Amino acid sequence: MIGPLPSPCDLSRAAAAARQSSLTKPPGSLGRLEQLAVEIAAWQATAHPAVRPSQVIIFAADHPIALTGVSPYPQSVTAAMVENFVRGGAASSIMARRLGVPLTVVDVGVMGAGREGGPAIGSGAAPVRLPVADAREGDIRHEDAMEPTVFAAAIEAGRAAVASLPAETRSVILGEMGIGNSTLAAAITSSLCGLPPQRTTGPGTGSTGECYARKLDAVRQAHNRVVGDAPLEILRRAGGRELAAIVGAAAAALARRMIVIADGFISSAAIATLIAAEPAAGPGVIFSHVGAEPGHRLLLEWLQSAPLLALGMALGEGTGGLTALPLLDLACETHTAMATFAEAGVPNRT
Amino acid sequence: MIGPLPSPCDLSRAAAAARQSSLTKPPGSLGRLEQLAVEIAAWQATAHPAVRPSQVIIFAADHPIALTGVSPYPQSVTAAMVENFVRGGAASSIMARRLGVPLTVVDVGVMGAGREGGPAIGSGAAPVRLPVADAREGDIRHEDAMEPTVFAAAIEAGRAAVASLPAETRSVILGEMGIGNSTLAAAITSSLCGLPPQRTTGPGTGSTGECYARKLDAVRQAHNRVVGDAPLEILRRAGGRELAAIVGAAAAALARRMIVIADGFISSAAIATLIAAEPAAGPGVIFSHVGAEPGHRLLLEWLQSAPLLALGMALGEGTGGLTALPLLDLACETHTAMATFAEAGVPNRT
Repeated sequence: MIGPLPSPCDLSRAAAAARQSSLTKPPGSLGRLEQLAVEIAAWQATAHPAVRPSQVIIFAADHPIALTGVSPYPQSVTAAMVENFVRGGAASSIMARRLGVPLTVVDVGVMGAGREGGPAIGSGAAPVRLPVADAREGDIRHEDAMEPTVFAAAIEAGRAAVASLPAETRSVILGEMGIGNSTLAAAITSSLCGLPPQRTTGPGTGSTGECYARKLDAVRQAHNRVVGDAPLEILRRAGGRELAAIVGAAAAALARRMIVIADGFISSAAIATLIAAEPAAGPGVIFSHVGAEPGHRLLLEWLQSAPLLALGMALGEGTGGLTALPLLDLACETHTAMATFAEAGVPNRT
Repeated sequence: MIGPLPSPCDLSRAAAAARQSSLTKPPGSLGRLEQLAVEIAAWQATAHPAVRPSQVIIFAADHPIALTGVSPYPQSVTAAMVENFVRGGAASSIMARRLGVPLTVVDVGVMGAGREGGPAIGSGAAPVRLPVADAREGDIRHEDAMEPTVFAAAIEAGRAAVASLPAETRSVILGEMGIGNSTLAAAITSSLCGLPPQRTTGPGTGSTGECYARKLDAVRQAHNRVVGDAPLEILRRAGGRELAAIVGAAAAALARRMIVIADGFISSAAIATLIAAEPAAGPGVIFSHVGAEPGHRLLLEWLQSAPLLALGMALGEGTGGLTALPLLDLACETHTAMATFAEAGVPNRT
């Protein structure tokens, strides 16, 4: 389901490390930016690491759990936000435009007006809408989120979104939208990392009081159902279509030696199941930030991944990835374009 | 010497906070970016907070302490790096070009070829060279770094660099170059914050072994001379011309309600003396990052300022400020350009 992934290129890594030590700065003085340039060079198997051109892909879907009062926002916000992305008014739209990064929204199961019985995928006028299946998603408290065929179709939808990107694309930022999906991410994180639900379940977009109690109960029930399963089974049974699509997109991007930039808690939880299932995916993924959700920090600790940013963000939609993109770009650009001591005639250390 | 500074505008802050709560995202979900947009709006007294157009200014100078073996790099690196900035090969040059931010290098006392007796300011072909004085800077172990007239001239050079910026400039990134100046910054930090020199003295650009021992000894001697002095006296007696120029530039920028973006340890130490002398400067300053130098973290803690980034950078030259600039820009841009719930027709929380 994931397919073969490349390995980092040791020769490129060694060449990049040697170049870093020749540039007109004390060794290590660009800190994490130096390490990032070297690791990106290794993953991309190149002397010219780059994260641009980049692409944001937001996968959107709805979930039965959203109808059980786990979020203070109504389920209809998912569809409304998809329209907001497309019209350019959402945070990720603004950031993407400001940075000159194209943004694609992929509807893999958003409930629309007049489609109350279940996601009517393949119809409607909204953004890119990739067919997954008409089957209703399961309520993760009692049912598997996706039948195997639906799960496979959602992963394939993610793959297809990446397959359509221009050949020169060097990184993808994988975001999501789906009211209720921080409940799914908490259930996945607890089950994957062996953490009790009360530690991984946070407020999400503002669940407090009884709303939080319902959310925690849903996470507990889902966790009880799937704990001990293999990583991708956890995703299939306690996740959602947009998370599965993120896994497919990440796998397809990594197969092309693109850098995958993980976004917030939900994006990170999806990608964590991929890395857990296939550790070869790890070196190509950069976790852009650690957000306000407690589960996000725990998940990144479990992955032993140090996020680039810690700004208390908790929006999803690719906003964390977009905020980190310029840092990654500067890491690559200094690596490629700085003068060496020899070129600049700068005396090196004595 | 500092002159009157404006206060943040409470009306603008309140209006910005109200706008943030109307935008199509859960309250607080952009985390620190939201707070930054609100505080920048307050400082700039505007409904449209902005950090661009921005400007990097690198102040460069040499110091007698660099001749005493506190750094592994020869003093001639200062002049060579000034040329590297101008030719566009340094890290800050690359970053500034990538981000489209103009970069100015201001020589306030760089030792040049054939000018071994002392900085010959006002001569030479290099970048902007602002006259400070021909007087040799003092060895901070035994002497005051600057006579009062030289100190005043260095501050004025910083002011002049900002005075020449276009009226539309919304932020300045204040960087520096000067072999040996992390010794000055450690002496200032110890004296200003009441910290023992062994805690504030780090490796800088790579001082280890005997080199570090000499550096620590120099910091101790300077600290013993100036501890207990007023903040700007500490700067005058244990600092350097580029640090004084940063204070002048910051004061001039703040007076125009520009945002001052502090860079690394040396830039932060200079700006800390300004804030200690005139707390009204505080709200207009953003500390871009905490670097690898131990004194930098201690200084920011003393200022109770949370840096935006923690990437282990330790280069100076404005590179930390440049790395943080896109984040600040995205904070401002989302604030100004995102759709409100009403505009987008997105249902708000129930």
